[in-house]
Amino acid sequence: MRVSDLGEFGLIRRIGDVLGEDLIDDCAKVIVGDKILLLTVDILLEGVHFLRRYPPEAVGWKAISVNVSDVVGNGGLPRWALVSLIVPSDLEVEYVDRLYTGIKEACRFYGCKVVGGNLSRGERIGVDVFLLGESERPLGRSGASPGDLIFVSGTLGDSRAGLDLILMERKNYEDFELRLIERHVRPTARIDYVKHLQKYATASMDVSDGLVADASHIAEASRVRINIESAKVPISRELAAFCRKHGKDPLEYALFGGEDYQVLFTHPRERWNPFMDMTPIGSVSEGSGVYVDGRKVEGGYTHF
Amino acid sequence: MRVSDLGEFGLIRRIGDVLGEDLIDDCAKVIVGDKILLLTVDILLEGVHFLRRYPPEAVGWKAISVNVSDVVGNGGLPRWALVSLIVPSDLEVEYVDRLYTGIKEACRFYGCKVVGGNLSRGERIGVDVFLLGESERPLGRSGASPGDLIFVSGTLGDSRAGLDLILMERKNYEDFELRLIERHVRPTARIDYVKHLQKYATASMDVSDGLVADASHIAEASRVRINIESAKVPISRELAAFCRKHGKDPLEYALFGGEDYQVLFTHPRERWNPFMDMTPIGSVSEGSGVYVDGRKVEGGYTHF
Repeated sequence: MRVSDLGEFGLIRRIGDVLGEDLIDDCAKVIVGDKILLLTVDILLEGVHFLRRYPPEAVGWKAISVNVSDVVGNGGLPRWALVSLIVPSDLEVEYVDRLYTGIKEACRFYGCKVVGGNLSRGERIGVDVFLLGESERPLGRSGASPGDLIFVSGTLGDSRAGLDLILMERKNYEDFELRLIERHVRPTARIDYVKHLQKYATASMDVSDGLVADASHIAEASRVRINIESAKVPISRELAAFCRKHGKDPLEYALFGGEDYQVLFTHPRERWNPFMDMTPIGSVSEGSGVYVDGRKVEGGYTHF
Repeated sequence: MRVSDLGEFGLIRRIGDVLGEDLIDDCAKVIVGDKILLLTVDILLEGVHFLRRYPPEAVGWKAISVNVSDVVGNGGLPRWALVSLIVPSDLEVEYVDRLYTGIKEACRFYGCKVVGGNLSRGERIGVDVFLLGESERPLGRSGASPGDLIFVSGTLGDSRAGLDLILMERKNYEDFELRLIERHVRPTARIDYVKHLQKYATASMDVSDGLVADASHIAEASRVRINIESAKVPISRELAAFCRKHGKDPLEYALFGGEDYQVLFTHPRERWNPFMDMTPIGSVSEGSGVYVDGRKVEGGYTHF
């Protein structure tokens, strides 16, 4: 049997079996003295997650952001990062300078710091970031209760539309298209949500694999059913314009497009803060699975 | 200018300049509450650090060991690991099982635990390990004083000879040759030295780039001169036999061969513990640079 037959989540379960550990959450939580640390790692590989022609600053920014997003989704603030860089020997040093400029900008924005790392030679560029965060009340996928509403920050599906646009390899893009591309290439983790999540969320995670896939993680870990109302799923004007232009269904992008790096969380209706860009997209009830407008739905981005 | 023109240490300095940080030690040290944590990362890439035909258990074992070695060299004990795995889609799942079996065995041996990780698709296998350690008294490269002796654990040069043997691609190897190959493919970090180092060492690190290169790091960080006596450098019977057979100079292997994962440390002569396999190979004096039998020497393994 090959890795592709098993799929990403099958392989994670299998590794958990070998190790005798449950590796289900994106973030590991460890206790050090009187502190709770969150540990996470995520890699960007050339040809898999980005292309050589992307601005190196954006790649550096995104490498930090995807990890910060994981920590934020678990109710933590990022503190220290290690960067493990794979570079081809013939890469221009200027590329490395620009990549680290993006890393530095992102760290300044999110309030964390690169404290170390490693360099290795390889055929293609890889940026593997290991991030340590701290939380007084770490969250996970397992606390959603029947009666909670499920919320998402920002809008969904933009990143996937941005990727589609990049892959069209056009010479010229309209302004709204460039904004979608920007959301794919240089996403911003929702660090502004950490306090709200720490205070009120019963379950929480970041949206990286797509809304349905990530809602399924919460449904499974919390042993609940999640009911999404498609009319409530937040869609940006840019995504709507993209879908009109290309004859696509925005809901398809919002439900199944990955890499939005928004936060998805549950709590009672009365914790809804209308001054933040959170949208209640549905409810939590007894049962299992993710339902959209009453129909059971599965699927999302998988890495194999 | 390309990465290969700048070299590994040049690139590290340049990245440090971009970040405005001093990234000189192999391990980062951060304070969490009343604890001091050591953070390190090291990667094994197929085709660069290992070949597909190596036993996967050994690759897993080594991926953990090289990181433990870093933590040990800095006077710490390993606690938690994250494993960021890159795998080709067509890789046999059995390979992943065996790799994680090696990771698990190593973690049990060293007393640490895999708490999380990440999976990514890529053309070649990569095992990037992030390790968190703890230390009550972390050590670094900068504390060596004139008057100290410099010690090394175990024997040096075996790993490099093992690699040479592997690259000969012979059908049959003698017993002593298999032991050298084993030291390259499945090295053991010197976790048995942590207490001694914590108690007595003035400077300490693991030997991964080669004795001269790593002694240079201590000389530079401590602003001292290190004097190595070649006759005292510990050489295994296996390396001696290898060098007799192939007409090589064992000292060349011991001084410049990398990946031995022994510990190199300094302290006063009276802290020498004759019940451990430590050898005093020279002394620390005022000045700069590394001298072997009075002659200034430079060089070692560099990753580009």
